[in-house]
Amino acid sequence: MLEKVLQQVANGQLSVHEAQKKLATFENLGFAKVDHHRKKRQGFPEIIFGEGKTAEQIIDISRAMIKKAEDILITRIKADKAAVICQSLPSFEYDETSQILLMKNSTFKPSYKGYVSVVCAGTSDLAVAEEAAKTAEAFGVEVRRFYDVGVAGIHRLLAHIEEIQQATSSVVVAGMEGALPSVVGGLVAHPIIAVPTSVGYGANFQGLSALLTMLNSCASGVSVVNIDNGFGAAYNAVMIHRIANQSM
Amino acid sequence: MLEKVLQQVANGQLSVHEAQKKLATFENLGFAKVDHHRKKRQGFPEIIFGEGKTAEQIIDISRAMIKKAEDILITRIKADKAAVICQSLPSFEYDETSQILLMKNSTFKPSYKGYVSVVCAGTSDLAVAEEAAKTAEAFGVEVRRFYDVGVAGIHRLLAHIEEIQQATSSVVVAGMEGALPSVVGGLVAHPIIAVPTSVGYGANFQGLSALLTMLNSCASGVSVVNIDNGFGAAYNAVMIHRIANQSM
Amino acid sequence: MLEKVLQQVANGQLSVHEAQKKLATFENLGFAKVDHHRKKRQGFPEIIFGEGKTAEQIIDISRAMIKKAEDILITRIKADKAAVICQSLPSFEYDETSQILLMKNSTFKPSYKGYVSVVCAGTSDLAVAEEAAKTAEAFGVEVRRFYDVGVAGIHRLLAHIEEIQQATSSVVVAGMEGALPSVVGGLVAHPIIAVPTSVGYGANFQGLSALLTMLNSCASGVSVVNIDNGFGAAYNAVMIHRIANQSM
Amino acid sequence: MLEKVLQQVANGQLSVHEAQKKLATFENLGFAKVDHHRKKRQGFPEIIFGEGKTAEQIIDISRAMIKKAEDILITRIKADKAAVICQSLPSFEYDETSQILLMKNSTFKPSYKGYVSVVCAGTSDLAVAEEAAKTAEAFGVEVRRFYDVGVAGIHRLLAHIEEIQQATSSVVVAGMEGALPSVVGGLVAHPIIAVPTSVGYGANFQGLSALLTMLNSCASGVSVVNIDNGFGAAYNAVMIHRIANQSM
Amino acid sequence: MLEKVLQQVANGQLSVHEAQKKLATFENLGFAKVDHHRKKRQGFPEIIFGEGKTAEQIIDISRAMIKKAEDILITRIKADKAAVICQSLPSFEYDETSQILLMKNSTFKPSYKGYVSVVCAGTSDLAVAEEAAKTAEAFGVEVRRFYDVGVAGIHRLLAHIEEIQQATSSVVVAGMEGALPSVVGGLVAHPIIAVPTSVGYGANFQGLSALLTMLNSCASGVSVVNIDNGFGAAYNAVMIHRIANQSM
Amino acid sequence: MLEKVLQQVANGQLSVHEAQKKLATFENLGFAKVDHHRKKRQGFPEIIFGEGKTAEQIIDISRAMIKKAEDILITRIKADKAAVICQSLPSFEYDETSQILLMKNSTFKPSYKGYVSVVCAGTSDLAVAEEAAKTAEAFGVEVRRFYDVGVAGIHRLLAHIEEIQQATSSVVVAGMEGALPSVVGGLVAHPIIAVPTSVGYGANFQGLSALLTMLNSCASGVSVVNIDNGFGAAYNAVMIHRIANQSM
Amino acid sequence: MLEKVLQQVANGQLSVHEAQKKLATFENLGFAKVDHHRKKRQGFPEIIFGEGKTAEQIIDISRAMIKKAEDILITRIKADKAAVICQSLPSFEYDETSQILLMKNSTFKPSYKGYVSVVCAGTSDLAVAEEAAKTAEAFGVEVRRFYDVGVAGIHRLLAHIEEIQQATSSVVVAGMEGALPSVVGGLVAHPIIAVPTSVGYGANFQGLSALLTMLNSCASGVSVVNIDNGFGAAYNAVMIHRIANQSM
Amino acid sequence: MLEKVLQQVANGQLSVHEAQKKLATFENLGFAKVDHHRKKRQGFPEIIFGEGKTAEQIIDISRAMIKKAEDILITRIKADKAAVICQSLPSFEYDETSQILLMKNSTFKPSYKGYVSVVCAGTSDLAVAEEAAKTAEAFGVEVRRFYDVGVAGIHRLLAHIEEIQQATSSVVVAGMEGALPSVVGGLVAHPIIAVPTSVGYGANFQGLSALLTMLNSCASGVSVVNIDNGFGAAYNAVMIHRIANQSM
Repeated sequence: MLEKVLQQVANGQLSVHEAQKKLATFENLGFAKVDHHRKKRQGFPEIIFGEGKTAEQIIDISRAMIKKAEDILITRIKADKAAVICQSLPSFEYDETSQILLMKNSTFKPSYKGYVSVVCAGTSDLAVAEEAAKTAEAFGVEVRRFYDVGVAGIHRLLAHIEEIQQATSSVVVAGMEGALPSVVGGLVAHPIIAVPTSVGYGANFQGLSALLTMLNSCASGVSVVNIDNGFGAAYNAVMIHRIANQSM
Repeated sequence: MLEKVLQQVANGQLSVHEAQKKLATFENLGFAKVDHHRKKRQGFPEIIFGEGKTAEQIIDISRAMIKKAEDILITRIKADKAAVICQSLPSFEYDETSQILLMKNSTFKPSYKGYVSVVCAGTSDLAVAEEAAKTAEAFGVEVRRFYDVGVAGIHRLLAHIEEIQQATSSVVVAGMEGALPSVVGGLVAHPIIAVPTSVGYGANFQGLSALLTMLNSCASGVSVVNIDNGFGAAYNAVMIHRIANQSM
Repeated sequence: MLEKVLQQVANGQLSVHEAQKKLATFENLGFAKVDHHRKKRQGFPEIIFGEGKTAEQIIDISRAMIKKAEDILITRIKADKAAVICQSLPSFEYDETSQILLMKNSTFKPSYKGYVSVVCAGTSDLAVAEEAAKTAEAFGVEVRRFYDVGVAGIHRLLAHIEEIQQATSSVVVAGMEGALPSVVGGLVAHPIIAVPTSVGYGANFQGLSALLTMLNSCASGVSVVNIDNGFGAAYNAVMIHRIANQSM
Repeated sequence: MLEKVLQQVANGQLSVHEAQKKLATFENLGFAKVDHHRKKRQGFPEIIFGEGKTAEQIIDISRAMIKKAEDILITRIKADKAAVICQSLPSFEYDETSQILLMKNSTFKPSYKGYVSVVCAGTSDLAVAEEAAKTAEAFGVEVRRFYDVGVAGIHRLLAHIEEIQQATSSVVVAGMEGALPSVVGGLVAHPIIAVPTSVGYGANFQGLSALLTMLNSCASGVSVVNIDNGFGAAYNAVMIHRIANQSM
Repeated sequence: MLEKVLQQVANGQLSVHEAQKKLATFENLGFAKVDHHRKKRQGFPEIIFGEGKTAEQIIDISRAMIKKAEDILITRIKADKAAVICQSLPSFEYDETSQILLMKNSTFKPSYKGYVSVVCAGTSDLAVAEEAAKTAEAFGVEVRRFYDVGVAGIHRLLAHIEEIQQATSSVVVAGMEGALPSVVGGLVAHPIIAVPTSVGYGANFQGLSALLTMLNSCASGVSVVNIDNGFGAAYNAVMIHRIANQSM
Repeated sequence: MLEKVLQQVANGQLSVHEAQKKLATFENLGFAKVDHHRKKRQGFPEIIFGEGKTAEQIIDISRAMIKKAEDILITRIKADKAAVICQSLPSFEYDETSQILLMKNSTFKPSYKGYVSVVCAGTSDLAVAEEAAKTAEAFGVEVRRFYDVGVAGIHRLLAHIEEIQQATSSVVVAGMEGALPSVVGGLVAHPIIAVPTSVGYGANFQGLSALLTMLNSCASGVSVVNIDNGFGAAYNAVMIHRIANQSM
Repeated sequence: MLEKVLQQVANGQLSVHEAQKKLATFENLGFAKVDHHRKKRQGFPEIIFGEGKTAEQIIDISRAMIKKAEDILITRIKADKAAVICQSLPSFEYDETSQILLMKNSTFKPSYKGYVSVVCAGTSDLAVAEEAAKTAEAFGVEVRRFYDVGVAGIHRLLAHIEEIQQATSSVVVAGMEGALPSVVGGLVAHPIIAVPTSVGYGANFQGLSALLTMLNSCASGVSVVNIDNGFGAAYNAVMIHRIANQSM
Repeated sequence: MLEKVLQQVANGQLSVHEAQKKLATFENLGFAKVDHHRKKRQGFPEIIFGEGKTAEQIIDISRAMIKKAEDILITRIKADKAAVICQSLPSFEYDETSQILLMKNSTFKPSYKGYVSVVCAGTSDLAVAEEAAKTAEAFGVEVRRFYDVGVAGIHRLLAHIEEIQQATSSVVVAGMEGALPSVVGGLVAHPIIAVPTSVGYGANFQGLSALLTMLNSCASGVSVVNIDNGFGAAYNAVMIHRIANQSM
């Protein structure tokens, strides 16, 4: 492409200024490509990781974003910090379980066929499961929740397994021993994104036990994200869901 | 539902054969579904995890499988064990780098559009990268290899980034500090399956360092499998690749 | 078997009702069996793990349970949370040492012969020991407590050893170096369920030291539950105690 | 008792020598009691832990034991060491899978009603499972083996669950992610003794992953022994089995 | 030198008293040398590590120092403690981001040519990066900050790489996966001092993940300081910067 | 620069081909800069990390390098592998202590003023210390070795401290408790690059103990490289030594 | 002795009651011996470990002890808890630095020749060093404190080394890298009891780093107690000091 | 002393050369003191740590030592290496259990009153226990061995407790759960030096479990040395034994 542009400049077909503009794009080719791919992601909300940022910092960042972004998703916000932010930015709405702040106008508008399943064992993994579920919904993906299906009562999982199997992918959240993804992985044919949670006590070592369990899963098709990283798991599931909605 | 079916049988509205079919589905519901899904996986080779099994055990299992399976993939086989197996089962062929045994007639016949990329930094991660690549190929998926692209010489990665971006997913293999998936994850828009390797020395702690790096990746779209688990990563990539080849 | 039953229904040899009964067993075989066994556990209280649940959640769950369960045992409840719950549910009574909430009418009514011993070293392991003791009592099992018998003063343990030996099983609770189960295990002929506690400082690493000690016990007949898991240890002891009360 | 003896001495009913003999027993009361309980264990074989002992040491210890013990069980013996020992002590027989040496005349003579189940997932856990099974049999307890029932194919476990449920206790052996005891624990009503194995690779950390999984099990009634400790698990199961065979 | 002094004493050229004084210095030669080298460090501020000291202790130490030192640098001071100190010592000024207290008259007076670069990824590493930057400035070294250049968006780093390359050394601060020093190390030709931070969650284990990443860096020229030790990194950079300003 | 080139093309001052050549350089500016800096490193030998590569692979890589590089440094080569390589490539010479292969013509030709000191405690750290020393010499830097100066006999260190102080930087190698860098760091005024070694036993955990000691050093001016990474430490020292030889 | 007593009973020289009393002592011979040795420890204060006990519990235990013990030493008491205790028990006096409560009349009355040295590096290790010093004094042993002698300024230690050498044993307290005991151990000829402290940050891991350093000490004559266990170290030093005051 | 020497030089009573020699000693005063103390240790053998040294290195070091030392103690020598050394140095004698080489003329000649006890549980800890015992004997101290006294059979320990109590100090060696020092510590009134061993399997983690147990010992008077460090424990015991033999 460079040769062609230069030829046009030499021929007077292109002004120096126009060539400069064209090549500016060209020079940064590697990143232009990235941006091209980023475009494919259009419709994705802007994301702010709220932990470790003050309410003031988040308000500033959000205001800057609001100008150019339609949707903003803010994760890891405690209730009191959320209250401060919502006072300044009344267009945001807070969900306490998932600790997520979303713009009111960005609420769930599924733009794809099919759904992602979010599976977890007990009420104590709920926060992480909901971070995953709410995130996927904010990306326009339908989510089905399966929340009382721990391995110590395997029949509850089996009662729902058909519906789980129809998903494009599953986010499986588990604390304590973290065995759920292995069992689900043995029953479905789509990718499992496993999320260990820090829930438990004693030798769970803040989620390390569940993390190791999942990494050592004997079921194929299971990959793992960081402890309590519901957002990251949902992001992976959304990517796969989009692929499922695009024929090659 | 059971009562209704039996009533119909008693009434002669339903033949025993038809009732059987209906109830067969009903009875084994959970597992029938599994098998149904398993069918979707047809064309997948049978897999034997070779580590910790003797040559004799592998030969026995393979012989039993050969009767019903077209393709068999055996992973984690050292050269000397492979030699013993190949003498008994001359239809198998050994690849030393990936430590994989494949039936000769199962060699690479891509049955999908597009490709999966396998990315790694140095020659020392080759064994794991090739386990991933050979596995994906055995599943009928085209693989493109990008093998000299470590983060300490970022320009080598950038030189190939466009081709990596066109894949449906990437398996990114890295030992030592394990930073490659984060960098690749920031440059592409598809799922990254990260594989930490045990390559390195000192404080790499047999792959723990690379594993933690990948779990903590600040790039979205990265999920992780066990240390040295090239097979598992490829299995995930194949699943996603199939989804990319099926319109919903 | 299904075909045969249907044939009999078609032939009029079996009524719909009788077939239903036969097949009910058949269909849900796996889970029916579970329930059958669950019945054997009748008389067991319902259990709520209180940690990580709000007072409101616990009240809701308890109210739902009260309708069908005679006894409810709630573990891991701090004093302030207990106060809130007891105000809403005055039929509950709180024990601060063990952090257990029990329905008033469920207080200790031993329904078995013999007793379980709960052994611990010092006042600092008391909370965990009492969680075990109170749990076993809530299951209708008599408990004998041996609470000042650490290994650094072995004669205090020996003074009580005969009474400990007469138990059907022993829950042995220890923090710091966790050596007590090994010593008790060498002196009695029944199963020891060892509970490491997080009590200690420095290199006890929140109970890890005691946990490793117990797993490495050179005394036979010692098995281990999670750090601070007095409830789990008692549950095991209760199971064994019931077995001791049932002749085969 | 002391008072009575002294009275008899004072009365001349007992010679000083006879009193001395009686009191010798009395003095060591604590340990006499132990021995009394040890008697309850009669029929138990003598046990030698073979690891870390030379063939010569084992032969010496065995010879000393043969004089007074009927049965001897030697664990953790590699094949080559076993060959050396069997040459000197032809009454011993070696089982390579379990790495156990048993006296030929001590082979399986079940002296109790009922059975213990030994459950494991795959062929790689076989050595540990067989150490447990062979140990229990050497103690005169019938064992039923369930060896192809990993959590990634849950239907295989469910196919056998009824028979597992009828055991007095289960030894559940698992490597890799170690999830099997949790699932079994949710399906049966008897004590589970869980054995983590060092089988696996990468982040299994020589059994640590499976160990943590089992300690964190969300199923009640699960206790844990050391990594690869099939013997210890069987010893616990035997104790419980004996209790089940004794009415109180 | 000893010989010469003794000669002079023998010759009467030196009194015993004078020789004693000279040799006193000589005797402690090792430490005199140290002090000599310390002199080379003149212009360096006095340093107080504030963590774990009360406001009162810090005020006392500072007062003692003020008498002989021109500049004092106090690190790791929380805002409330700083307020107490500044009330007593109004000549100090507090910087909240870096948690550093500096004497007002010690503000930035660069006494060397060139600059040190301080590089970090995100806003959450800011505190540590600023501790490094403010420290280097307090030592009279110009600092250039590059603060939004994480590896997940590699083009932002590349946009500034030329300016980073011109520094005498770089302090590279990173939490989470800690990959930034490897990437920077591959792009520059000067020493990198890498600082892992405790920022992140889950399996970052309070900075351990980033620490291991940096120690295992495949880029040459990277050395590492303790987690969150911005001060220590800056001290190393200052040493190298001084060397760069002294011709040998 | 782009504008200027385009102007010249437009003016016909530059042919398309010439402009293409110029801009090719320009386009890859980021990396051109890198190369520019790489040039500054001229005189540096090419480096091959030998561990994990077969003799054949090393011979191939070396042959390819020999064509364009004057000097080649191969690290981590065991004696038997070295023998194979030297037979094929007789221009290489092997040093067993440091496990380094060097081209014969690349032996020590110091091209800088001053020296780097390599300090270690005992004979068991020798291999790592020599890897550092030989590496620095291969880069043309004079090395002074101080090899019997452990902290348990502090006077031996003090006897040499003046000569150590005159170096531009020190590589300090220590296994076991790893305290040497702290002590040296308190006595000199130049940068210390600390290398933990895996030498020791028991709770040294293959160098982890020494690594943690060095990271926690209370002496300023100490930074750390990976366990046993003598090469990496030397590389840092060489960088600093070159800076000391260049006036700004 | 048993024979003699029985003889006397037989002879009527001893009543049954008197014999019973004598033999009661005899029976518990093992522990009588212990008590005999305990007597050797007379003058030792009674000790209460205050951590994890409420003020009320401590007051109760103390009151019970006051009746029979002259001196009571209570460790690990925070200031606010101490205030509550002192109000109830005005005979106690609190030392905030060491967090020790002592009876007023038990203050320092050295009853031995010689002294124990307590050595530490910085102000942040003071609490642990003072727990050791105050404990030894409470046991009647003279203590000499050497508190500003960290390894990063080795000359400060050497300035006091002669006085340290004259002690019967040294308690050496160090946080961060924990190197001080190794250096002291190389300079003195008496036993060193090393105490790691949890002081530090980042990779000190709450004292683990210092603990490992001390266990790996290359100086002979160093043994280690738990992290922050100043009391335990002092107890060892006191034992040795008493031995030094008793000729065999 | 300096003044006096100078005076003598001034007076011509001392030549410059002689003064120089005297002051050389004086200059190194700090270390002279050390040597003075070292003298107190006269009779101590020279020690070589054999692990990681070749037979050739050990022979060289020994030959150099033989010239000035009466006794040499070489630890950690495998049998084959010992054979090579003894061929060159026939005055050495090898003890395989303790892996110690001693000069033949240095065999046991106790030069003190009283004895040190070495206590261990089982045959597998024998190597470490014997390293301790043989070391103490080489230092001229009588040792009494108590080798079959594990905590799982507490009566065996109690049978010997009186003799253990009479020692000046005890080295207590234990692997697996490492509980023995706590129990012994509760029964004796002298210092216990605890040695964890790497004996065990599974979750003993090469001695870590026993190490943590001992550090967390609830018995006072217990200090700990490195895993398997029998030599170090003996060295401490010898120091205390000498103190017991010197009246202050």
